[in-house]
Amino acid sequence: MMRLLDLAEAIDAGDITPSTVMTLAAEAIAAREGEVKAFAHLDLDAARIAADRRGGDDGFFGLPVAVKDIIDTADMPTAHGSPIYARHRPKADAAIVMRLREAQGIVIGKSATAEFAYTAHPPTRNPHDLAYSPGISSAGSAAAVAAGMVPLALGTQTGSSTIRPASYCGVAAIKPSYRLLPMQGIKPFSPLLDTLGVFGARVVDIAYAMEILSRRPMRVDGGDFGTPSFGILRQEFLGPAQEAGEAALVFAARAAQDGGAVLRDIASPPEWHAGAAAHRVIILAEGADSLAYEAVHHGEKLSPVLRDALARGRAISAEEYDLARRDANHARKVSRAVFEGVDALLTFSAPGEAPPFPQTEGGQFNRLPTLLGLPAINVPVLRGPKGLPVGIQVLGRFGEDRRALAAAAWLEARIAAS
Amino acid sequence: MMRLLDLAEAIDAGDITPSTVMTLAAEAIAAREGEVKAFAHLDLDAARIAADRRGGDDGFFGLPVAVKDIIDTADMPTAHGSPIYARHRPKADAAIVMRLREAQGIVIGKSATAEFAYTAHPPTRNPHDLAYSPGISSAGSAAAVAAGMVPLALGTQTGSSTIRPASYCGVAAIKPSYRLLPMQGIKPFSPLLDTLGVFGARVVDIAYAMEILSRRPMRVDGGDFGTPSFGILRQEFLGPAQEAGEAALVFAARAAQDGGAVLRDIASPPEWHAGAAAHRVIILAEGADSLAYEAVHHGEKLSPVLRDALARGRAISAEEYDLARRDANHARKVSRAVFEGVDALLTFSAPGEAPPFPQTEGGQFNRLPTLLGLPAINVPVLRGPKGLPVGIQVLGRFGEDRRALAAAAWLEARIAAS
Repeated sequence: MMRLLDLAEAIDAGDITPSTVMTLAAEAIAAREGEVKAFAHLDLDAARIAADRRGGDDGFFGLPVAVKDIIDTADMPTAHGSPIYARHRPKADAAIVMRLREAQGIVIGKSATAEFAYTAHPPTRNPHDLAYSPGISSAGSAAAVAAGMVPLALGTQTGSSTIRPASYCGVAAIKPSYRLLPMQGIKPFSPLLDTLGVFGARVVDIAYAMEILSRRPMRVDGGDFGTPSFGILRQEFLGPAQEAGEAALVFAARAAQDGGAVLRDIASPPEWHAGAAAHRVIILAEGADSLAYEAVHHGEKLSPVLRDALARGRAISAEEYDLARRDANHARKVSRAVFEGVDALLTFSAPGEAPPFPQTEGGQFNRLPTLLGLPAINVPVLRGPKGLPVGIQVLGRFGEDRRALAAAAWLEARIAAS
Repeated sequence: MMRLLDLAEAIDAGDITPSTVMTLAAEAIAAREGEVKAFAHLDLDAARIAADRRGGDDGFFGLPVAVKDIIDTADMPTAHGSPIYARHRPKADAAIVMRLREAQGIVIGKSATAEFAYTAHPPTRNPHDLAYSPGISSAGSAAAVAAGMVPLALGTQTGSSTIRPASYCGVAAIKPSYRLLPMQGIKPFSPLLDTLGVFGARVVDIAYAMEILSRRPMRVDGGDFGTPSFGILRQEFLGPAQEAGEAALVFAARAAQDGGAVLRDIASPPEWHAGAAAHRVIILAEGADSLAYEAVHHGEKLSPVLRDALARGRAISAEEYDLARRDANHARKVSRAVFEGVDALLTFSAPGEAPPFPQTEGGQFNRLPTLLGLPAINVPVLRGPKGLPVGIQVLGRFGEDRRALAAAAWLEARIAAS
């Protein structure tokens, strides 16, 4: 995989040029894109020209970036993974794309997404084994990083769309605190839940990207952030994970313990259980509003699964939706107490290894963290019996993304040393 | 003015047809639009055909509606009040437009807005006196209702864009609780503040519209909601209102008292003072993100005032923005205590009468309510020395929009009886 932090430092030091990195990216794409299908749209020629021309020394140094295809780009089509928007060209870049480009990130293409970032599987395959799913909905973003095509990719998460594909593809990713990164110019599905996601090779890489994109101190390379303490959260109200998922959690916990971290088991408060149930109501009700026009005027171009979801969303009463919003608020309010005495929580990123392509189950462990708006990070841990990656999810306190990144980076190092 | 509730009931009773109402709207537009300039785009021919064809009996009964031109419509241009988006045609209707059309509202045109709903004045004039401003940014929406062109108009409010023009134009309007109405498909300026607004002739009319648009019980005609109690809030940290503004507040308070309402003076808590200051930071910082592409690629097509605002927004540090978010949270948290013992607060809708066209000052009393996310309603009260309308603002508890509407309707009736 391409390591964002290392590449940025190498360019800054004059050890490598952006043009060379772009050539490496193009080679990885030439070798794998035909089978992986990470991109809905690619423009390597324009990217090469941009890399050749790059001057200045801003954080992304002309490095190649993949941007999920529900994020607006004025110079590339933005199809939202739907034939309804084939060849759609937005009038402006999304706010996050502007931040990316201002720091000299070069968007080489739009990464494949599930239809409107919901659950219809795109053609993307898992780079570790093409018979398997890369996870959805930010399938292309996770796969492009995993296949060594880009050192950085942007995705989104409304349910499980960042952390799950990161786990399946064996890459690091963060779904930051709700509203830490700007959402303007991203096709909404559920405004109360929609959150940007950032993919990279390692935790230090996504922290580096987060520092630039959020314009806040986020880097966790170099410094010593101390030994974190962890709470182990199994979200037991969802039932058990698969053997490989449980093994990853146990492995990560043991690595942490061996590294000197204090661990303790955390029982989910009842408000979190109710919050996880509220997630379903909110996403369906808001999704029905977000895609009301498409449902009425382009219903025949929607997948059956999305058409059905929008119909179910429409059937949710305002009363039921308001109750779900209340449950969500209650769930958020108890978060502070749950984190008492621990720096971060460890929970499942996914039930286990990726399911066969194009299956899409396995998002359950990500819904509560999304609803709570907490920073959530996938740390790759091990390979399961099918040889596919399995990660664990590090959850931080709301608004304390750097503390969560520091804990995740520490854990990643302990896992590597195990 | 056209009264939405009365027209809906008359159509339902078979006393008038939608075609006749459309003819009345067309006549008012023919008589006044040349000088008032309420619309950025009008399509009366299509509206007439739609009204003639109307079947069924949904709440808006084929009545004409004006929609602010930052709200997406797939069948009409959506120019955001900016030459950058001249002839821009969105791919889909905004969620609120879908709700409107599902209930058989007929969008006859796009009402004029300040550039991107910020502060550059559109060509719209105050229907009560063309030498004066109708208020911004939802200038066309307020003016179209005031001039009798439509019984219902949609606007938005990020600072003062609904309540202030309603006061200047002498119409009723509500900025509902934050996130009560869906924002998908509306050009964002400050996502933490942007809120839909609804304009009509009287409080019962906007309550009727709110019941349909929010899909919640909101009507306040017919029933007896009891005698409300009011807190008088002068937002004294902003300095005094003008004489006409103060007179309107005193007049409304006396009418309430004469009607048997219990009144009490409310001092603004310090958190609200800080919240009002936070509003400026949030709107500028988020605006800079929302229009980052336009600033970089179309800077020459932006008004100097907006260009300057975006530059100031860009200069706000993440730290300052985060502090403002914190202040906003603190301000919201004390709201419940402020409302203790009263059903609603009375405060200024604007400092006084409308300023001469195209002046734009006078939004200060709306910023705190927007930041707090409270339901805010303009109730027309009196005419000032220049003969222009002055209203007062009724603020309700967060999420209790119907209670606020009931208090406002009661007050409106007391004012009429005074």
